[in-house]
Amino acid sequence: MPIIQMNMLAGRTAEQKRAAVSAITDAVVATLGVKPEQVRILIHELGPEDFAVAGETAAMRGQKPPG
Amino acid sequence: MPIIQMNMLAGRTAEQKRAAVSAITDAVVATLGVKPEQVRILIHELGPEDFAVAGETAAMRGQKPPG
Amino acid sequence: MPIIQMNMLAGRTAEQKRAAVSAITDAVVATLGVKPEQVRILIHELGPEDFAVAGETAAMRGQKPPG
Amino acid sequence: MPIIQMNMLAGRTAEQKRAAVSAITDAVVATLGVKPEQVRILIHELGPEDFAVAGETAAMRGQKPPG
Amino acid sequence: MPIIQMNMLAGRTAEQKRAAVSAITDAVVATLGVKPEQVRILIHELGPEDFAVAGETAAMRGQKPPG
Amino acid sequence: MPIIQMNMLAGRTAEQKRAAVSAITDAVVATLGVKPEQVRILIHELGPEDFAVAGETAAMRGQKPPG
Repeated sequence: MPIIQMNMLAGRTAEQKRAAVSAITDAVVATLGVKPEQVRILIHELGPEDFAVAGETAAMRGQKPPG
Repeated sequence: MPIIQMNMLAGRTAEQKRAAVSAITDAVVATLGVKPEQVRILIHELGPEDFAVAGETAAMRGQKPPG
Repeated sequence: MPIIQMNMLAGRTAEQKRAAVSAITDAVVATLGVKPEQVRILIHELGPEDFAVAGETAAMRGQKPPG
Repeated sequence: MPIIQMNMLAGRTAEQKRAAVSAITDAVVATLGVKPEQVRILIHELGPEDFAVAGETAAMRGQKPPG
Repeated sequence: MPIIQMNMLAGRTAEQKRAAVSAITDAVVATLGVKPEQVRILIHELGPEDFAVAGETAAMRGQKPPG
Repeated sequence: MPIIQMNMLAGRTAEQKRAAVSAITDAVVATLGVKPEQVRILIHELGPEDFAVAGETAAMRGQKPPG
């Protein structure tokens, strides 16, 4: 622990994901006093019809995929 | 908030998803006194071997994909 | 299925929760063509220091508990 | 209930998933006093760039896919 | 991995939880070919107004707490 | 999005949680190119009998609460 689940729109590159999990792990280690190897991160990617705000999906809102 | 995660078998159309997130958002706004833009919905789709009841997957139970 | 998890700030009454799960279930049944007894809803309540937007918790933002 | 979500690296066969959900269901029934049909299991599969330990993804660690 | 999240009604004893996580871990090790120390289990307990089937909470259905 | 759920043992102070969500948000903004207000973080705290590694709960392992 901590075990972190990150939900985001699909489309990031491997490089972006690697940078993100590295930076998040550093942030958690620095603020919660845990060792890096205790930090696990799971990424769940969502398609443009699978995330909605105010009852409209990202596709409906014309939200472009990241990257 | 609320942030809502909906798990369901894969296979719904974009139209069905759009209708569902719209109706769920309305339901939450009407009953919990929040604004529509506070409501976020995430859909996670599952394959036929990735959901089980009573120890049997949907595929084993002969459950047909929706739609 | 669907199995729905709703995360929201703690503080709603039992009446509000009951109204919400009833309305959400109706919304799902009407739009996804499932039977009411297939719809399961789990509510996870969060304290004011356990939900953050833009790096600030609800408590920091002076967000009042619902209800 | 219980409703169980299992996150694991993608790559298991249908046979492995079926064996796993059957055995997990038996384990829950035997220890928690519920009926098999009350136990629901959801499997979420993760790609090699979507799971990280100590700030490194499975792909970075050279972790091979299961099976 | 696997990382397993189990949602269930609140009320089980520590002994029941310990028996459950031990048996589930054995089931996963036996069927998925992982080492015990790779298996992590998180239990989320839900109150009687926080779990609904068919639009009715456990409290409404007169469902008694486990144990 | 991203929407981040962090599971950790109960016992951190409000100050620790505030430092963590601030640092995680900065990490996500810096690496994924999103705006701070798009980042939502939910913290789920777990009791010592509600988290297990290798079939043993944190309480069984004599793991002390953080902080």
